[in-house]
Amino acid sequence: MKDYGLERIIKTAFEEDLPYGDLTTDALIPDKQLGKGIITAKEAGIFAGGFVVKEVFRMLDEGIILEVLVDEGEEVKIGQEVIRMEGPLNSILKGERIGLNLLQHLSGIASATGEYVKKVQGTKAKITDTRKTTPGLRALEKKAVQLGGGINHRFSLSDHVLIKDNHIIAAGGIKQAIKGCRKGLSHTVKVQVEVKNSVELHQAIEEKVDMILLDNMMKEEMKDAVDFVEGRAILEASGNVTLERVEEIAKTGVDIISIGALTHSVKAMDFSLNLQEDSG
Amino acid sequence: MKDYGLERIIKTAFEEDLPYGDLTTDALIPDKQLGKGIITAKEAGIFAGGFVVKEVFRMLDEGIILEVLVDEGEEVKIGQEVIRMEGPLNSILKGERIGLNLLQHLSGIASATGEYVKKVQGTKAKITDTRKTTPGLRALEKKAVQLGGGINHRFSLSDHVLIKDNHIIAAGGIKQAIKGCRKGLSHTVKVQVEVKNSVELHQAIEEKVDMILLDNMMKEEMKDAVDFVEGRAILEASGNVTLERVEEIAKTGVDIISIGALTHSVKAMDFSLNLQEDSG
Amino acid sequence: MKDYGLERIIKTAFEEDLPYGDLTTDALIPDKQLGKGIITAKEAGIFAGGFVVKEVFRMLDEGIILEVLVDEGEEVKIGQEVIRMEGPLNSILKGERIGLNLLQHLSGIASATGEYVKKVQGTKAKITDTRKTTPGLRALEKKAVQLGGGINHRFSLSDHVLIKDNHIIAAGGIKQAIKGCRKGLSHTVKVQVEVKNSVELHQAIEEKVDMILLDNMMKEEMKDAVDFVEGRAILEASGNVTLERVEEIAKTGVDIISIGALTHSVKAMDFSLNLQEDSG
Amino acid sequence: MKDYGLERIIKTAFEEDLPYGDLTTDALIPDKQLGKGIITAKEAGIFAGGFVVKEVFRMLDEGIILEVLVDEGEEVKIGQEVIRMEGPLNSILKGERIGLNLLQHLSGIASATGEYVKKVQGTKAKITDTRKTTPGLRALEKKAVQLGGGINHRFSLSDHVLIKDNHIIAAGGIKQAIKGCRKGLSHTVKVQVEVKNSVELHQAIEEKVDMILLDNMMKEEMKDAVDFVEGRAILEASGNVTLERVEEIAKTGVDIISIGALTHSVKAMDFSLNLQEDSG
Amino acid sequence: MKDYGLERIIKTAFEEDLPYGDLTTDALIPDKQLGKGIITAKEAGIFAGGFVVKEVFRMLDEGIILEVLVDEGEEVKIGQEVIRMEGPLNSILKGERIGLNLLQHLSGIASATGEYVKKVQGTKAKITDTRKTTPGLRALEKKAVQLGGGINHRFSLSDHVLIKDNHIIAAGGIKQAIKGCRKGLSHTVKVQVEVKNSVELHQAIEEKVDMILLDNMMKEEMKDAVDFVEGRAILEASGNVTLERVEEIAKTGVDIISIGALTHSVKAMDFSLNLQEDSG
Amino acid sequence: MKDYGLERIIKTAFEEDLPYGDLTTDALIPDKQLGKGIITAKEAGIFAGGFVVKEVFRMLDEGIILEVLVDEGEEVKIGQEVIRMEGPLNSILKGERIGLNLLQHLSGIASATGEYVKKVQGTKAKITDTRKTTPGLRALEKKAVQLGGGINHRFSLSDHVLIKDNHIIAAGGIKQAIKGCRKGLSHTVKVQVEVKNSVELHQAIEEKVDMILLDNMMKEEMKDAVDFVEGRAILEASGNVTLERVEEIAKTGVDIISIGALTHSVKAMDFSLNLQEDSG
Repeated sequence: MKDYGLERIIKTAFEEDLPYGDLTTDALIPDKQLGKGIITAKEAGIFAGGFVVKEVFRMLDEGIILEVLVDEGEEVKIGQEVIRMEGPLNSILKGERIGLNLLQHLSGIASATGEYVKKVQGTKAKITDTRKTTPGLRALEKKAVQLGGGINHRFSLSDHVLIKDNHIIAAGGIKQAIKGCRKGLSHTVKVQVEVKNSVELHQAIEEKVDMILLDNMMKEEMKDAVDFVEGRAILEASGNVTLERVEEIAKTGVDIISIGALTHSVKAMDFSLNLQEDSG
Repeated sequence: MKDYGLERIIKTAFEEDLPYGDLTTDALIPDKQLGKGIITAKEAGIFAGGFVVKEVFRMLDEGIILEVLVDEGEEVKIGQEVIRMEGPLNSILKGERIGLNLLQHLSGIASATGEYVKKVQGTKAKITDTRKTTPGLRALEKKAVQLGGGINHRFSLSDHVLIKDNHIIAAGGIKQAIKGCRKGLSHTVKVQVEVKNSVELHQAIEEKVDMILLDNMMKEEMKDAVDFVEGRAILEASGNVTLERVEEIAKTGVDIISIGALTHSVKAMDFSLNLQEDSG
Repeated sequence: MKDYGLERIIKTAFEEDLPYGDLTTDALIPDKQLGKGIITAKEAGIFAGGFVVKEVFRMLDEGIILEVLVDEGEEVKIGQEVIRMEGPLNSILKGERIGLNLLQHLSGIASATGEYVKKVQGTKAKITDTRKTTPGLRALEKKAVQLGGGINHRFSLSDHVLIKDNHIIAAGGIKQAIKGCRKGLSHTVKVQVEVKNSVELHQAIEEKVDMILLDNMMKEEMKDAVDFVEGRAILEASGNVTLERVEEIAKTGVDIISIGALTHSVKAMDFSLNLQEDSG
Repeated sequence: MKDYGLERIIKTAFEEDLPYGDLTTDALIPDKQLGKGIITAKEAGIFAGGFVVKEVFRMLDEGIILEVLVDEGEEVKIGQEVIRMEGPLNSILKGERIGLNLLQHLSGIASATGEYVKKVQGTKAKITDTRKTTPGLRALEKKAVQLGGGINHRFSLSDHVLIKDNHIIAAGGIKQAIKGCRKGLSHTVKVQVEVKNSVELHQAIEEKVDMILLDNMMKEEMKDAVDFVEGRAILEASGNVTLERVEEIAKTGVDIISIGALTHSVKAMDFSLNLQEDSG
Repeated sequence: MKDYGLERIIKTAFEEDLPYGDLTTDALIPDKQLGKGIITAKEAGIFAGGFVVKEVFRMLDEGIILEVLVDEGEEVKIGQEVIRMEGPLNSILKGERIGLNLLQHLSGIASATGEYVKKVQGTKAKITDTRKTTPGLRALEKKAVQLGGGINHRFSLSDHVLIKDNHIIAAGGIKQAIKGCRKGLSHTVKVQVEVKNSVELHQAIEEKVDMILLDNMMKEEMKDAVDFVEGRAILEASGNVTLERVEEIAKTGVDIISIGALTHSVKAMDFSLNLQEDSG
Repeated sequence: MKDYGLERIIKTAFEEDLPYGDLTTDALIPDKQLGKGIITAKEAGIFAGGFVVKEVFRMLDEGIILEVLVDEGEEVKIGQEVIRMEGPLNSILKGERIGLNLLQHLSGIASATGEYVKKVQGTKAKITDTRKTTPGLRALEKKAVQLGGGINHRFSLSDHVLIKDNHIIAAGGIKQAIKGCRKGLSHTVKVQVEVKNSVELHQAIEEKVDMILLDNMMKEEMKDAVDFVEGRAILEASGNVTLERVEEIAKTGVDIISIGALTHSVKAMDFSLNLQEDSG
């Protein structure tokens, strides 16, 4: 499948890591020596990116046979084997770092998302990401958020209207801004407005926007917003959301909670690749 | 300047974020409206990536004049203004997220590096990175490590020999592995071996390698290694290095301490872009 | 501005048309000879793509000064001057064909769209495009549809759910299909279903989809659908829409009429570039 | 085979249409579900582009087996099956639009060319294209002209000399222009001049050019030109050629008739992809 | 001007030579230090590639002002200054090697071509290149041949018919091969046949080909061919042409002499870049 | 394996040589005709680039089965068969020129290197290349140097410090320059200084640099340098090295001799591809 920019990402990674071969491996491992490698989780978390590792090794060497042992989005335990591969040993060694870097990053995102998702279980709130992603990896990172149980916010400035304060000032008010956006807008696109207080909220509702972003509001303000809106628009809470605070935000009744840290402050989930006894 | 893959990175970021314009801004901000934007640090840390933000806005719109107010690698305070720009308002808004994403990521790396560097002050140990970098961003991330006061480890498998256990097994011993690598090796390249114990360490020293990686050793083992080697090779400590442990590792007398988390588990440093009063 | 894939499109066009210079012009026109060129409409229609022509000549030769004399989306008369340029004559000649090819194609799309838009004036129906676009030019062609007074349908399979008959069969029914899509779907994305008859229409309405595509329906069926739905979903008429039929379709009260021919069967609008007397 | 820019074209099409998957199909069609698809002509015409559709599906999913049932350039009847494929159903659905867009465009060109070719049967005139092609698709479109029975004019400004009026003015006359071009010209390249009247025609013949373009001439003028030239140069009629006029132009005895509309005003030939009964 | 693939070539060169900066220059030369550089010929020859060096430094740093002091194709003496530049010293140092590599290669080609051209002065023979060029540099290398006074042979397999022995065997004879190629061939393309003896030569002339390649013939055979053909086709001598032999080949009366060594065995022409006294 | 930029190089070569097919072969050789081709050395030398030829034909047509009959770096005799292939005849003909161009270039480099290596046999000197490589081919050319028995110098300005006179002047002396470079330098990178006389040599040794480049020194000066340094740094002789002089340079006791001509003035090694009797 040709999406997520996978080919571009992996090719760039090869150019970074193997511009003219692997000095050590090329000198020591004969081309024809075969080996078996196993990737194991070194901490518990949500597995994401097996299909990426598969593509890394497919692009590196079609002679490697690789099996992903767990489903994308599955919770894995410490010590659990997640991927097995077999083929030319020097290719296994050359692809190791690139494969692990991607797997650890994506599983890190999925695992963090999963922690937030667990905290809001029992509420109707869904966890979503932002555009605060790593340049070049947005589509993959958003996939990892999905695999962690979250849903995705917009992918780009081109696919969703989100009216922020600067737009409101430029347009001369919320109502003018909403009307200005709707002129000539595709019927497939939803309109969202960021509001800071109840006056702005009321105006947004009067203009029948699809979604409203409650920007950095207190718990009580969010609750009031939920009560006032009564389902007439999707309500998204944003700003300063932490693992500690997320549950109480969810309990206000908002529909969506967006969290930049899911993708801008990723803690890698630890995996390692080991060669099997008989393959050295 | 044409390096760090900057053009590729920024172009990809534009393709991700602006595939066919900014629905909201294009509808609301007239092409000719000018504005002024200021980027401010929302937490203290080490500034890294001003030259990247400058390139983002130059590539987006040559009509934007942008001044970076602090030096790369400079410590900034919370609330400090770091970048000022002036030009077409809609371009400022379109480039905002991409510019901030890169600045926050790189300053996050520099700031974390800086914390480790401070901890080892007074020792001769230097902090270095690994190849556990984000695919596509390696050169930029390694630059950020430098700006944080660290030095760089190898950039790729092509520019430095690092003999690990799998290589040693395949070659039939440390000595054979070192000799095998040296045959035909460029005279510009250093040779490093990963050792797990003093037997391996002695063999490496006998073969006159340039550098030795002490893998996951205890403090005392490292100290013994330092005493034994007496400057005949550069000693690098690696594995399980935390902010808490780094000082005691440094005090063993090793030359280099490498830390994967500098680049694989980045916490973004917070910055925001605000428009100036008279520019709305 | 860095969107619509303009740089890629124009670069590819240069590679096609000027792989190693212009044999004729390079032999006959001295590098330093200056000239003035005027692009004139040779038929009436809607002007679209001036910004593209500007970029063609900017990328070809920064010494060319080019002014677009009419607004994007403006109706022009036969014989009307639309673009003036001045600079090295040989660059004007080299860029002529590429600039005109793009301008003629985009203005052809805008003009055709404009004809449909005129036919439905006075109704609430809007004219929209499809994904039946020219590979590589989708974003530009969709911009031309906008400039002709139409609105855009989805840009890709990634930004809007459109459930078609094959999906319904695979899912085991309309309701199952809609529910299946909503699981894990981004809150920013609208859901549309294609229906063939009133049974399917009713099921879609029960599932509260955002939009319904009435596939190849007769005028009377559409009218019934409008009456039944009463604004609970956006209704789109699709299939076999011609200039002759579009008005009666619009009068049924549907919201949207989508037309593949806008982009898959483009008739170029004729423009020519002439050099001014004193520039030969 | 690596030509026509096919890989670039299809990759760009995937990036346009599947930037991060197919929301609908990914949600509803299991990865492993197999299906069979048949592409059928919905109108009569000349088939062109089967090899392109084959490449689309090969690049999308190597698990799809696709057979093109008719030859390139073959006339097909309404309702005729032209391509069969079998493999993962979700890949068939994802590639459908891209495959059809290209097939419809190319077959549209071939079919239009074929109509012109039929009109001139029995004369010695050949139908040819121009450089008025779609940016990025020139080589493919010119292939379609061939498949429709036409021959190709030059591919770029780099591979053939065509002296037009602006060149003549700049050089100070036809003879000077021809001589100027010949200096240093590759011996593999033919020289053509555009002439507007018999004076220019005579000059061109005196200079022994290989080809002459009769620009927008009346039938009688062309006939006179043919009589005068007597085979000493290839004569090409150009400008304002329509299906109605082409036969009488051909009967003047010109060798070549070039038609911009073949590629700048393409009417797509209609094809559809249907899934086979047992594959839903 | 956007041709010769210059942008691609130079970008690749930067990626090769400056993947993450210049360790030495970045450490020692302050960003703002200005300098002046002069490129001087260290041997006599024909200058080719000044426009390439200009583009190298323009792409590297727009702050560099560079003047090419001699014309492309001009003969330069040992010690002659050919290019002067002024601007940031570190950019001058960074671009030095890439600029010189290209200049030396292209001037080497032009100079070698010039030596052959001189040898055939007074005859009607022209010197031409082949497709034995460096991958990625074909258009530039062919430009250098022109600058040395040669003319170009075909640029690719797509722009000229050259029937060789394998084609003749496959077609079942020279006449069949020529006829087979002409079917559907563009009227802008010349047809050439490679012949080994007079029988083949006579057949080619009977089929009225445009050009004939005399493959590895003796001087006398070539002379006979010239006498027989009497200008009815362009005659090209090919194979085993050396500086020693070229004059006697030319004197046989052939039109064209093609030489693979012009581009496949290039001896670089020596140039050096020196900084001016007051700029260190 | 994904390195040496092979994919980019070969793709560019296809774009150069086959932009829209092979006019001659496409017209005369049926798609399904099979053939066998043999590549033979037409002169003695060192074989380099078989893996490149293999990749050329793999990328062109997966139906071609190709066997490389000799090892990379092996000496071959005149007339020796080096590669055999079998598959669609028209693909063999289309890839012939590109495959041979690369093979001849790389084997030319390896063979020239081999001649220098033979001359210095019995001394401890090693032959190395420079950065005077063909833009786009550096990694491949450096591989060819290795295959010829040489070792590689630095690959880019980013991977090795080499302090030259301009750097020394800018820094205010050799010692300052060396110290300036070491600040913040990666511990994996060696430092080299270019020296012109014994004063500079002594300073370099005092600063304990890893390597010293003896620039254009006389035989006696080199000998003195070797005596003085006594193994405290690697000594490299550079400048004006010819096949005639290389042995006496080696005998001075220097460690490394670098030679720009290995890659900037390559004489192609001659190979030809012939079809086997039964395959025409």
